[in-house]
Amino acid sequence: MCVLGLGLIGGSLMRAATAAGRHVWGYNRSAEGADAARASGYDATADLDLALRRARNAQALIVLAVPVPALAPLLTRIAELAPECPLTDVTSVKSAVLQEVSEHGLAHKFVGGHPMAGTTESGWSAGDAQLFRGATWVVSVDDGVDPQVFAQVTQLALDCGSVVVPARSDEHDSAAAAISHLPHLLAEALAVTADGVPLAYSLAAGSFRDGTRVAATDPSLVRAMCESNPHGVLPALEEAMALLAATWNTLNAENSVELLVEAGHAARQRYEAHERFDISGISRHDANWRERLAEAGRAGGVLRQVP
Amino acid sequence: MCVLGLGLIGGSLMRAATAAGRHVWGYNRSAEGADAARASGYDATADLDLALRRARNAQALIVLAVPVPALAPLLTRIAELAPECPLTDVTSVKSAVLQEVSEHGLAHKFVGGHPMAGTTESGWSAGDAQLFRGATWVVSVDDGVDPQVFAQVTQLALDCGSVVVPARSDEHDSAAAAISHLPHLLAEALAVTADGVPLAYSLAAGSFRDGTRVAATDPSLVRAMCESNPHGVLPALEEAMALLAATWNTLNAENSVELLVEAGHAARQRYEAHERFDISGISRHDANWRERLAEAGRAGGVLRQVP
Repeated sequence: MCVLGLGLIGGSLMRAATAAGRHVWGYNRSAEGADAARASGYDATADLDLALRRARNAQALIVLAVPVPALAPLLTRIAELAPECPLTDVTSVKSAVLQEVSEHGLAHKFVGGHPMAGTTESGWSAGDAQLFRGATWVVSVDDGVDPQVFAQVTQLALDCGSVVVPARSDEHDSAAAAISHLPHLLAEALAVTADGVPLAYSLAAGSFRDGTRVAATDPSLVRAMCESNPHGVLPALEEAMALLAATWNTLNAENSVELLVEAGHAARQRYEAHERFDISGISRHDANWRERLAEAGRAGGVLRQVP
Repeated sequence: MCVLGLGLIGGSLMRAATAAGRHVWGYNRSAEGADAARASGYDATADLDLALRRARNAQALIVLAVPVPALAPLLTRIAELAPECPLTDVTSVKSAVLQEVSEHGLAHKFVGGHPMAGTTESGWSAGDAQLFRGATWVVSVDDGVDPQVFAQVTQLALDCGSVVVPARSDEHDSAAAAISHLPHLLAEALAVTADGVPLAYSLAAGSFRDGTRVAATDPSLVRAMCESNPHGVLPALEEAMALLAATWNTLNAENSVELLVEAGHAARQRYEAHERFDISGISRHDANWRERLAEAGRAGGVLRQVP
């Protein structure tokens, strides 16, 4: 398989898939990144065409591991050099990637993916073969995804130690906005609000450290995820703002934050009580398999083997 | 010394101060809490008058370790039975406590305190003698605080392994709103926003787990801290809401979250780079010692010995 982009996620994927016994090569735009991967003993190049010709010759799975703003030039070359290779991605938004892929005429062999894992670090050196172990890896069951490519992408996720949640791209994006993109924006807002308040950094303890942790993420990555998912982020942000505005009003008028605090505590309890179940009895050869997997994923189901 | 309230903080304080060689007894309103402390080998009672008579006879330091809404009945009994004992507290707001104490005629021997430590657990069983080790403990330098009581409270904090930040109550409350109370409200809002979004809890990973961690805190404690500090919380909440609203607008109109994300990242970097220094050259016997300590604390200074 061929990994395009050897940052935190792509670099971790290269390590994890290699450790799982796969034959993996990679491309990185910067020679420094490719050199670092080679210095670690991996098969990496800064020559995109070379990496893609190898993929075409081997009919290898190609993995897009770059942020959305960097996708277009890669897809242009893939369309020219390896248009029939199975294709996936590891990007934190799914609809925008699907749209870019479609615009480049590559949708027929594309099945999007998103491993829900990361750290606030970035670059090849931050990578870790264990990053995906125990993580959730979303694999697309959008209308028309090819069952064979779906199986290949699911197997990759399983090989890396993840469990797979089958989901539609639009539903993924709404969920990702609520559980990933919004937390990043709230962390940024919290950091800015405290900044400059005398004593704040001297007194900051666990709640501030945890609440701003992801504000340490490279700003370009936070921008890429939020700005490529406005349809998911805007309603989530709007709901959070409405909750905070209502709380400001009740604190101001009645000295109470009861509604928000009780509801937030109950929600966090439901999150802690959330249990996955293993999806069974659905095969990718069945009629309506995509819809049935999407429904099972929505209900909390995960795949631990290729269905 | 006499600890009133043997929950997470009071119970940890009883353990830590005992471990430091102090003679400590405690009171808990519920017999269950007092029994649990006794079962762990500590000197605890559910008889408030008994605990306070012992404090009066020993002229012991009394520590208020209950949330603000529970203060009034304790202060009423202290005013009757032990009005001349040195008095402190370990509550997360300082102005509201000072006001309650003043209304009960006990301000002359009171020096407020706030150890910046905690977990989302509560109750005697959640306590830990190590909870305050390496933590920051705010000790009040409000106008008129007694230098002798200030020294006693500072020594207690140091004995528990904390460093002391001298601060005025109003400045503490503004900082605590930004770095503790606001993070709690944002965590609650995040949990509520994700609740009910299909797939959200299945996909939730680090940023959501960390971003909602403190929403697991007992709602009554979150309410107590926010509702007893409206003058701190309202402006902090308002600033966060304004940042989010501006971000909603730029994401909607220009597909950009750049301003917030860059500012948040820069603020988090400043927080990580924040360095304390040891306050020296100020004695509690100096003129203007309170103002000078407040200024040093504001600038990032901490006390590692009684000044």
